[in-house]
Amino acid sequence: MDKYIELYKEFRKKLKAFEYVIWLMSWDQETEAPNGSVEYRSKQFQVIAEEAYKLESDPKYVEAIEKLYENLDQLEDEDFKVEIKKANKALRIVKKVPEKEYIDYLVLTQSGSHIWAQAKQKNDFDMFAPTLEKIVAFNKKLVKYLETPEMKGYDILLDMYEEGFGVVDYDLFFNKIKEDLVPFVLEVTTNNKYKFNRKLTKSVFPSSKQKEFSHYLMDVFKYNQNKGLLKESAHPFTSGVSSVDTRITTHYYEDNLISSIFSTIHEMGHGIYELQNDSKYDDTALHGGTSLGIHESQSRMYENMIGRSYAFWKVHYPKLVEIFPKQLKNIGLDEFVKFVNQAKRSLIRTEADELTYSLHVLVRYELEKAMINGHLKVKDLPKKWRSLMSQYVGKRPTTDKEGVLQDIHWSGGMIGYFPTYALGSAYAAQIYQAMNKDFNIDEAIENNDIAKINAWSKEHIHKFAQTKTPKEILHIATKEDFNPQYYIDYLKDKFNK
Amino acid sequence: MDKYIELYKEFRKKLKAFEYVIWLMSWDQETEAPNGSVEYRSKQFQVIAEEAYKLESDPKYVEAIEKLYENLDQLEDEDFKVEIKKANKALRIVKKVPEKEYIDYLVLTQSGSHIWAQAKQKNDFDMFAPTLEKIVAFNKKLVKYLETPEMKGYDILLDMYEEGFGVVDYDLFFNKIKEDLVPFVLEVTTNNKYKFNRKLTKSVFPSSKQKEFSHYLMDVFKYNQNKGLLKESAHPFTSGVSSVDTRITTHYYEDNLISSIFSTIHEMGHGIYELQNDSKYDDTALHGGTSLGIHESQSRMYENMIGRSYAFWKVHYPKLVEIFPKQLKNIGLDEFVKFVNQAKRSLIRTEADELTYSLHVLVRYELEKAMINGHLKVKDLPKKWRSLMSQYVGKRPTTDKEGVLQDIHWSGGMIGYFPTYALGSAYAAQIYQAMNKDFNIDEAIENNDIAKINAWSKEHIHKFAQTKTPKEILHIATKEDFNPQYYIDYLKDKFNK
Repeated sequence: MDKYIELYKEFRKKLKAFEYVIWLMSWDQETEAPNGSVEYRSKQFQVIAEEAYKLESDPKYVEAIEKLYENLDQLEDEDFKVEIKKANKALRIVKKVPEKEYIDYLVLTQSGSHIWAQAKQKNDFDMFAPTLEKIVAFNKKLVKYLETPEMKGYDILLDMYEEGFGVVDYDLFFNKIKEDLVPFVLEVTTNNKYKFNRKLTKSVFPSSKQKEFSHYLMDVFKYNQNKGLLKESAHPFTSGVSSVDTRITTHYYEDNLISSIFSTIHEMGHGIYELQNDSKYDDTALHGGTSLGIHESQSRMYENMIGRSYAFWKVHYPKLVEIFPKQLKNIGLDEFVKFVNQAKRSLIRTEADELTYSLHVLVRYELEKAMINGHLKVKDLPKKWRSLMSQYVGKRPTTDKEGVLQDIHWSGGMIGYFPTYALGSAYAAQIYQAMNKDFNIDEAIENNDIAKINAWSKEHIHKFAQTKTPKEILHIATKEDFNPQYYIDYLKDKFNK
Repeated sequence: MDKYIELYKEFRKKLKAFEYVIWLMSWDQETEAPNGSVEYRSKQFQVIAEEAYKLESDPKYVEAIEKLYENLDQLEDEDFKVEIKKANKALRIVKKVPEKEYIDYLVLTQSGSHIWAQAKQKNDFDMFAPTLEKIVAFNKKLVKYLETPEMKGYDILLDMYEEGFGVVDYDLFFNKIKEDLVPFVLEVTTNNKYKFNRKLTKSVFPSSKQKEFSHYLMDVFKYNQNKGLLKESAHPFTSGVSSVDTRITTHYYEDNLISSIFSTIHEMGHGIYELQNDSKYDDTALHGGTSLGIHESQSRMYENMIGRSYAFWKVHYPKLVEIFPKQLKNIGLDEFVKFVNQAKRSLIRTEADELTYSLHVLVRYELEKAMINGHLKVKDLPKKWRSLMSQYVGKRPTTDKEGVLQDIHWSGGMIGYFPTYALGSAYAAQIYQAMNKDFNIDEAIENNDIAKINAWSKEHIHKFAQTKTPKEILHIATKEDFNPQYYIDYLKDKFNK
């Protein structure tokens, strides 16, 4: 086996380097690369992607993985066993998808986000539709290529982002949301007539000042700036490549004070997860979050349960007032906390509040399922989007910019990804309860001791990187199976107040 | 030949992609990559450099170049002939330098700039000395590996940066500077007793305001921001990878108004050169400036002859006053122009004025020559630096931060590079004279028509990319051989006024 272990590690070292440069090209593309070079960059990307694919599909590498997988019980290192299992699963692509189709798809999705951004800016779905059609078509083919007696259709895509979760699990979860949450939300958002001080919504909040507060937040959350940084991009995101380099972005809107605040905290939740992965996984294929759902549970917990808590603003609101003395004059702590926790029907997922958030995801889940199952065509997407939004969120978009074009994900080929967002919020509620049994979270927040929360999360979730499945992580952290009741109870409790 | 042409182009396509990602890794490293990831990045860099080297040294690629070179006269495309000649020259490295030594050196110089930056920050030459010793040792070996009956020693390094220029040429040039310029400069800087308004040197100039002016300058110079961008870095530089992506950086010091202004203009000179390369060279090995000297002639001409002219500030000083109304109150145009053109003895090359600049380069030229010839050891460098600075610039540094540690170049392995800076200024004076015969440059500047200067430069210099040698470019642009007298006359004329 030693020969195969050595061979595997040799390839892994090279693949990590290709992963790194592909990561860097994407980071550059999303944050600062000039528009005029998109074609040029795409050409270089294609070559690099081909070289990486050659490595991934090299018969010697494939053989090494197969041999190691066949002899798993001879391997001593438990982490390494997990890695080989994952590598063997990943071989499906190499073995079953024709190389050229796969490379073409990588190139398509690499330039896709650029086309999407332009279409969104121009509010022109037709500009994006041909790209999205190709992406959906490929995913439908992909599902065919990868299907097994045990797993078919949309399940295959869902499992890629959240191992062990398929349509059966998600239907249960989303049906609970449809039954318990949709009517509750419609009721809360109808009755909510509270009028906030107009200064909160009508003032100008200069970007430079918002930036100052975002950097203050990085200190509060002990985000290690020796191993990461905060930048700006059209759509906030986290981009991690190792426990020593995990970068986040946010977006400043001068007419919106809180958008950048909660984007920054949200991305820090993602970022701290990866920065707190045990560094021994940096050179392996196991670095990173174990699943998107667990990833999102961290960002949602940091954003909503910590960042929107009364305890948090009791400590940090004075700083915000110091930065925006005019704009926040005469606005007290109570009103501000109410403001950041208001629930209302909205059109944009990333700007949606905690209560309505999962309903936006429900819309996308149903659309993806229908597209992959062949019950919905790309050209009919805008119309269907509007109708589902109206039904579940109670608000109907009038433009595609505020509708189907709002999210970057599909342009990058991420189908099966959205459902994990809602799952993440539900995990977060369950994890928060478990942590709160170990120590009083509000007390830690009031002591400005976020480090305590980081430490618990590291110990129970972060340090494991990808060595545990989502279900295993949930068991380690909460000693229970997934139970969405925590989430429903948490929301009803909070928004009944 | 067709078979070899095709083979060559196939390799070139891959090599361009590797060049691209290596370029991007460096850009990231110099502008924003977190300190904590330097080791991790260096590891990935090593793998990518190895893969690129494998391509460069692939026997099939080498054979293609050799066959094409042997049959140059059968090639029809003149540009392609130049490319093959250059490729054949570049083969020297692959053929004569042991692979492992070369890769180790690439890795060393990739992390070198990081070590240098830390040493500079801590003013600790000993932190950097071991790295520099390795770099010098490699370059001495390199010279041995590459020597031919026609070319030996330091000449080999000099020729890498400025084709056709060796110690004989530079000695002639620098001796002229020593004889004509050193005494003139010592005299001018002794007699200069003009007292500027203290507000010019004692005010605070907020970075954000300086940034605003730098972006204004990008518009003035018609810097195409669809194909480039302006960022910040410790040491301003230009980083171009194609005619559709050429990025520049500057640095804002809040106690210095003009440093960022002239850094920005300087880097735009470099950037416009590469952006105005004919785009047909983007996919070839011929994109970029033909030599460092010609490159520097463009940055120096834009910075000094355009950017520091009376005509320029007549048009743009009002904008600067608008941005800094308090700091520039009661300071007239005449005083400001005198301020940006003052000559004084200084310690830092990048902050040196036009008159004293080449003397800083003279110091470095003599030190490099002595190190490569084995007459000077790295450990004796700081002392020798101080003594030469005292002799030529008339000012002696008391710290290494302000002395031998000030420049990034050697940390990246660039030995033989500095002399081109002085050459660039001399070329610039000659080129300016030639352009001024075609149209009145001051008039164009006063009409805020920098586009006219860009267009002339494109036609006479920029569009050729690397298809012409420095000496050929000089002939195309000025119809003469290199003549440093223009430079001496220009400086004496300007600073006698």
